[in-house]
Amino acid sequence: GRDDYASRDGRSAQLIARKDPVVYNRDWSQAPIAQHHIQHYQQHGYMVLDDVFSSQEIERFNAELLQLRSSDSVKRARETITEYSSGDVRSIFAVHKMSAIFQQLAEDARLVDLARFILNDEVYIHQSRLNYKPGFRGKDFYWHSDFETWHVEDGMPRMRALSMSISLTENNNLNGPLMLVPGSHQQYAVCEGYTPDNHYQTSLKKQEYGVPSDACLSTLIDQKGVKAAVCKPGSVIIFDCNTMHGSNSNITPYPRSNAFFVYNAISNQVQQPFCGRPARPEYICSREAISALKPLKVNAHT
Amino acid sequence: GRDDYASRDGRSAQLIARKDPVVYNRDWSQAPIAQHHIQHYQQHGYMVLDDVFSSQEIERFNAELLQLRSSDSVKRARETITEYSSGDVRSIFAVHKMSAIFQQLAEDARLVDLARFILNDEVYIHQSRLNYKPGFRGKDFYWHSDFETWHVEDGMPRMRALSMSISLTENNNLNGPLMLVPGSHQQYAVCEGYTPDNHYQTSLKKQEYGVPSDACLSTLIDQKGVKAAVCKPGSVIIFDCNTMHGSNSNITPYPRSNAFFVYNAISNQVQQPFCGRPARPEYICSREAISALKPLKVNAHT
Repeated sequence: GRDDYASRDGRSAQLIARKDPVVYNRDWSQAPIAQHHIQHYQQHGYMVLDDVFSSQEIERFNAELLQLRSSDSVKRARETITEYSSGDVRSIFAVHKMSAIFQQLAEDARLVDLARFILNDEVYIHQSRLNYKPGFRGKDFYWHSDFETWHVEDGMPRMRALSMSISLTENNNLNGPLMLVPGSHQQYAVCEGYTPDNHYQTSLKKQEYGVPSDACLSTLIDQKGVKAAVCKPGSVIIFDCNTMHGSNSNITPYPRSNAFFVYNAISNQVQQPFCGRPARPEYICSREAISALKPLKVNAHT
Repeated sequence: GRDDYASRDGRSAQLIARKDPVVYNRDWSQAPIAQHHIQHYQQHGYMVLDDVFSSQEIERFNAELLQLRSSDSVKRARETITEYSSGDVRSIFAVHKMSAIFQQLAEDARLVDLARFILNDEVYIHQSRLNYKPGFRGKDFYWHSDFETWHVEDGMPRMRALSMSISLTENNNLNGPLMLVPGSHQQYAVCEGYTPDNHYQTSLKKQEYGVPSDACLSTLIDQKGVKAAVCKPGSVIIFDCNTMHGSNSNITPYPRSNAFFVYNAISNQVQQPFCGRPARPEYICSREAISALKPLKVNAHT
């Protein structure tokens, strides 16, 4: 059949309308959070929930992050992405398989119940990672829609996935916070170019393909501008798989860390990549032995 | 004699106390602006003055900037610094010699009278430039004290100079605004390393020498944090020659431009560079035919 979200296929850069719902569940009275958050998410493509995790929980996550980042075996693991210049750890993929603490976090009912509500389906982890943007030398991440890559390179069929970023540090205006383009989730930016072999090996450091054009970005941003997700540790930023986002560099001494989980509807499991190239490795895109997450009730104060 | 501000001379990175005044004039009742601004400058090493230039004046400056940036001869001029990757114009040096409009701005009494008051001397232009930080792909500028470079590479004897940045665009939190470290002007960060031959040819794109250590920066920033000079077109940011400053990258579509003039006390004219290497070119550091500026009274509304 026709590919509703073809990209990097020779067409010129352009915006096309989204062909999928955003909030799949129509009975918002059943939402596990206040309805105005759901309304904001539907309209803008993201929401920020404050105080989801306690300071004790965040301390525990940060201690685990520190241990992982300083482990020699983690540094050498193929799941670990390092900075071009310094060699410092920038991201650790598949962290829910590497660490019991982050596995528990991925399954936490505060996250999973909300993902299940929005996607109106059982969910599984499509991708997970720990992101560490160091102080002084944190690099920028250019604008992108995650779905464009997940569709083209991973074979994710529809826009029925979302990301949750659990803030482990302060995100202020100046330390390279996540910036989102409100409303951008309703349009799909077809990208020019193509997908080279083994693109993932370089794209995780600096993306050169699957990059939206200046004209598409300007059109999206002209509508409602740019919003920085400024928030405290323990907050959760939730955004649709097609919301355009990026971040500036960080020369302040304040690092920025988060745990990042992508929940995909179980009915939206990945197929063969639409670019016709081999699938990306399992640690970047779950493909084998997929099963629905069981929400784990955690006592926040233990 | 002994060099009070030696740097890149084999000593380890360290902070030493400033040995010069900040506001040289002691009779603040004679200041051409409100005294609380002078107090702020004395204490924090910078001040932001709003609405110094009218929107008509800013329009005129921006039109001239656009013309200079798109001129082929300007693009090829050695005074012009281009982006590493794109080749776009990033800065144009000695702009007060290249453009009658910016010469007039450099001599404008609103700027010159204030520089003369703070430095308590006649003043001349040590350096001038137009800075253009493009939207989408604006690069970051790492933390630095201008004086460190002006002393080591240009032979500026004392801390008796200041910079004025006239904002030609909106400076918001997200488009890579100038960030300053309040109070940092009272300490001098001795830098490690040395000064290579023709350092200016690369340092204007990316500085590798004269870079303060992480420890020195952390100490300076721990005192009062980091401030972003968020302001509107027509504002002027004034900062001491030794105030630590820098800026993050800019992936937003909003470019950031300013006209930048360094006023030096006529009694503080440059000597031979303290690094013992040849002087930088005249367009980066005025050395020949220096004469005091005569403040030019401009009718803001013509």
